[in-house]
Amino acid sequence: MPEPHGEAARIAALIAALPRGERVVLGPGDDAAVLRPLAGHDLVATTDTFVEGRHFVRSLLTPAEAGTRLAAANLSDIAAMAATPRWALVSLVVPASWSAAECEALEHACAQALAAEGAAVVGGNLAAGDGALVASVTLLGEVEPDRAWTRAGARAGDVLAVTGIPGSAAAALALALRDSPPSWSRVPDELRRAYVAPRSRVALARALAAVGGVRAAIDLSDGLPGDLARLCVASGVGARLEASRLPLAGEGRPLAASDDYELLLAVDPAAWPAIAAEALRMGAPLTAIGEAVAGSGLTLRDAAGAERPLPAAGWDHFPA
Amino acid sequence: MPEPHGEAARIAALIAALPRGERVVLGPGDDAAVLRPLAGHDLVATTDTFVEGRHFVRSLLTPAEAGTRLAAANLSDIAAMAATPRWALVSLVVPASWSAAECEALEHACAQALAAEGAAVVGGNLAAGDGALVASVTLLGEVEPDRAWTRAGARAGDVLAVTGIPGSAAAALALALRDSPPSWSRVPDELRRAYVAPRSRVALARALAAVGGVRAAIDLSDGLPGDLARLCVASGVGARLEASRLPLAGEGRPLAASDDYELLLAVDPAAWPAIAAEALRMGAPLTAIGEAVAGSGLTLRDAAGAERPLPAAGWDHFPA
Repeated sequence: MPEPHGEAARIAALIAALPRGERVVLGPGDDAAVLRPLAGHDLVATTDTFVEGRHFVRSLLTPAEAGTRLAAANLSDIAAMAATPRWALVSLVVPASWSAAECEALEHACAQALAAEGAAVVGGNLAAGDGALVASVTLLGEVEPDRAWTRAGARAGDVLAVTGIPGSAAAALALALRDSPPSWSRVPDELRRAYVAPRSRVALARALAAVGGVRAAIDLSDGLPGDLARLCVASGVGARLEASRLPLAGEGRPLAASDDYELLLAVDPAAWPAIAAEALRMGAPLTAIGEAVAGSGLTLRDAAGAERPLPAAGWDHFPA
Repeated sequence: MPEPHGEAARIAALIAALPRGERVVLGPGDDAAVLRPLAGHDLVATTDTFVEGRHFVRSLLTPAEAGTRLAAANLSDIAAMAATPRWALVSLVVPASWSAAECEALEHACAQALAAEGAAVVGGNLAAGDGALVASVTLLGEVEPDRAWTRAGARAGDVLAVTGIPGSAAAALALALRDSPPSWSRVPDELRRAYVAPRSRVALARALAAVGGVRAAIDLSDGLPGDLARLCVASGVGARLEASRLPLAGEGRPLAASDDYELLLAVDPAAWPAIAAEALRMGAPLTAIGEAVAGSGLTLRDAAGAERPLPAAGWDHFPA
């Protein structure tokens, strides 16, 4: 197939100029990359795709910012497994409406954001398309054997805790979309940054894994109730959240909103003080919002002690 | 993001019903898959994307056939490294014009074709899109340490050999596109099969690697001259092909056509008899078509001994 913009050489040069990455025997430029896994470790693998107009709006994100968010989406999945990001493959389907420079900016920013967390781009694919740009990253990470966090280990009595302020990114987007044309001009900068440049939780996850006591974890990219429901189903527990503890104050941040890349953890209550202390030491907000309970289903308890069911919106998605 | 067709559960069930794969600690359904690499082996990684209307035409390929070809494209890259396919992630961007059943058929056939060569689908992504369907596979394989074939090892004097009959798939497609609407009705069945159900060269590559003497290899997916030129540049050699030896007889198969998934090998001349014998034993056509020469550039020598330059069409592509 002929390729868009005749850009192969420029993008290959761009990738070649980035850090080569650890244990990359053969990088981009052959039929496949050759990588050398760390002896005795497990490999984790995830993939995430952004479709222009659906996962990002060009009037609100530069190509570079879209690339950064795409990296963040994948890094968040690796963080949720308590793994270390290592190697990435980046694929673009490029319509005529994207210039060569815009594609390079997206690729470069994506690669930079991955490199900041220790992952190198080792290959990819570039194809011409029609309509919307489609950008996909497959990210590989490494983790000590049998130490990957999963969704399935929570037990009744575990502390449920979230990093950051879930809903911030969605609130930022909702505010920006109120303007016509969409604009960040009336969005507080702290909120805008939550959307445009989400923080990575990779280092935090690695540090908490070293402390021990995290029994289950999930990436909150689809909204707190839906992702909590998934963790509960996988673990065979229910959950009761305390309304007063949810870090959702101000700006009307929607509880069920997606677009964040935060983590939800289920923590052995005996380990919670050490986990909370480690998060504090790392400078990362980690808030206990409730606990896992026997049975199934989600409830929200208000300050007066009244419990009501919490619907698990955003539930239906293709995982991993 | 809401997802197309609410199909997550059905596709997850479909994947879950397939063979789990070797050393899959955690399959689809969590934030990432967890895999256990073979101790002391290298990992190879490739990704390939099909865009509807560009990489396949719906009137000529069923969704299942498109899935099979997508698997073949990725398997061919792994074969070109002499590696064993192990784990795959499959991503779809699905427009409204594709039904849930059609997406499932594509996914299922792709997974089946991968499973036939030993690779399990361990994750993926499903997103709604507009316009054309986009399907991507990232395929991981394993190979003995430092034994991956690359494009860079050919030396002057090496035998250049191709598997199969390069150009067959493109010839089939060209014939089918002559009909209006496009149709296989006047395409010989052997040619049609070269396009619709390309043979995997994975087992052949593994067997030849065990014999030894293959110094460089490349997947011929972009046409013989262009891919040969890439191998020559990577190896720092030129090449002289013998027109009389090219397996292109009949049907006017175009030399520079893409769409095949065959291999081009550079073989130590001392090892060539053993390599040729092993290919014969495997029942795989492997034809010596020329040799690597000192210097650079490609030439084609006719039966009378006259040499002319061979233009390297299809050269510019984003590799790996």
